[in-house]
Amino acid sequence: MRPVSDTPSRTVVELRVRYPETDQMGVVYHANYLAWCDMGRTELIRGLGKSYAELEREGLILAVSDVSLRYHASARYDDLVRVETWVEEARSRAITFAYLISRVEGRGGPQKLVSAKVTLIALTPGGATRKLPPEMLAALKAAIPPQGA
Amino acid sequence: MRPVSDTPSRTVVELRVRYPETDQMGVVYHANYLAWCDMGRTELIRGLGKSYAELEREGLILAVSDVSLRYHASARYDDLVRVETWVEEARSRAITFAYLISRVEGRGGPQKLVSAKVTLIALTPGGATRKLPPEMLAALKAAIPPQGA
Amino acid sequence: MRPVSDTPSRTVVELRVRYPETDQMGVVYHANYLAWCDMGRTELIRGLGKSYAELEREGLILAVSDVSLRYHASARYDDLVRVETWVEEARSRAITFAYLISRVEGRGGPQKLVSAKVTLIALTPGGATRKLPPEMLAALKAAIPPQGA
Amino acid sequence: MRPVSDTPSRTVVELRVRYPETDQMGVVYHANYLAWCDMGRTELIRGLGKSYAELEREGLILAVSDVSLRYHASARYDDLVRVETWVEEARSRAITFAYLISRVEGRGGPQKLVSAKVTLIALTPGGATRKLPPEMLAALKAAIPPQGA
Repeated sequence: MRPVSDTPSRTVVELRVRYPETDQMGVVYHANYLAWCDMGRTELIRGLGKSYAELEREGLILAVSDVSLRYHASARYDDLVRVETWVEEARSRAITFAYLISRVEGRGGPQKLVSAKVTLIALTPGGATRKLPPEMLAALKAAIPPQGA
Repeated sequence: MRPVSDTPSRTVVELRVRYPETDQMGVVYHANYLAWCDMGRTELIRGLGKSYAELEREGLILAVSDVSLRYHASARYDDLVRVETWVEEARSRAITFAYLISRVEGRGGPQKLVSAKVTLIALTPGGATRKLPPEMLAALKAAIPPQGA
Repeated sequence: MRPVSDTPSRTVVELRVRYPETDQMGVVYHANYLAWCDMGRTELIRGLGKSYAELEREGLILAVSDVSLRYHASARYDDLVRVETWVEEARSRAITFAYLISRVEGRGGPQKLVSAKVTLIALTPGGATRKLPPEMLAALKAAIPPQGA
Repeated sequence: MRPVSDTPSRTVVELRVRYPETDQMGVVYHANYLAWCDMGRTELIRGLGKSYAELEREGLILAVSDVSLRYHASARYDDLVRVETWVEEARSRAITFAYLISRVEGRGGPQKLVSAKVTLIALTPGGATRKLPPEMLAALKAAIPPQGA
């Protein structure tokens, strides 16, 4: 999933809903939206300069500490879905990303599906908390959308 | 997963962490705890008299509307994990379940892993909101643990 | 995932490996390649004229009856992966798709990862076997790559 | 999932189908049976003396090299399912496990669902092929069911 566009402050990825992401209710199982949030922040971080894959190999582990999701409507198999990701808060040892997930194309037409927040804390490979690299922290802070954006 | 014990107000299920539930961080991927919460409420609902599978066939769909999780520590492959589920709130059209997920056995020993809340709303198969069956609502209200329990 | 190219006989989709697709071995869990095969045949079928989502709504269920996969090398998180899908055999009530999954970009460079075959049988929504629509069967037969392609 | 019984040669685990294991066809998504096979061999290996979790920490990686599954009937949400696992072949660097997955309880009653084979090769943590520990190879060979069992 490559980003289809990047504004200065919001990263957008689009994806098509996969069959195994659905459940017998005929809609996407609620836990699967978290994987899409993960794709969103993967691309946002890549856009800041270095991929999370590289950062992890260099010893920066970002572990999820808090998650909240609100479900407004349901995605269905084969829907084209857009995930907007932005930085809500960046501190020396923790980042909060916010997400807006919407249907772009599919039965029911364009629609807001899920809003979410995910907080990650910076860890060493051994599991101790650590600080974010200063240049990454600065880039994250600079990426916070202006109020009201 | 059958419940290993039922107190009047908390349903307990135990499970062993599966290999595919881990990720390259060497721990359980954060979204997978939601599947364990699902197992917890499946057993809690069964304990009230009728399985969710039956309720769904009879036209009661419980769709997740809100989720929040806090991660305290990580489960690992082959850990024995316990999921405690209880009713936090029951209204005519919505139920909030609360969860405490702990490691029972595994490296690191017994430990609190995740606390979570999941709110579900009652829908018709067509997707309209509906009321819970009155006897189910009464059973859910009666299952709320007393304060401080 | 939209197809990045279509030859007359092979449908190609590309995807970036998601974090939850990995396991603690540091590579993609072997079952997850089946989801990518699913994406491949979704696009192949769409290319024949009508999406599988539509076909299913019209009463054609394609249920997997046989699967075989051979793993040559492992995909890793954030790898760019290509799935080539083609029709190997089309009969009145069953289709066999073949797959070649390769790394396009990522540590280790371009590499063949997995070859697979998936056979699906045509069912009614009630679960009885049925025939494929004649125009679909004809299109599938026409899509079989010439020997040696 | 602890084994509910062990015969000398077949390991049996039982599990209840989870909601997220289903798809919009109303049945278990075909790839998910591989996770159940994984649970089966986890318990079979544990029964030979040392858990796979321990073996992996000691430097023995068992990576899947070949998989084949035949689907006879479908598991549904909340079905009680049994996974029988046995050793089909054990060589110095590879093991083939065979599986029979059946419904024990649920709509449709007891029924054979899936038969499967999974071959794993022994690797070092660095990814080179290696030999199985001799005592493990001996135990695996001894665990092969007699012909016709």
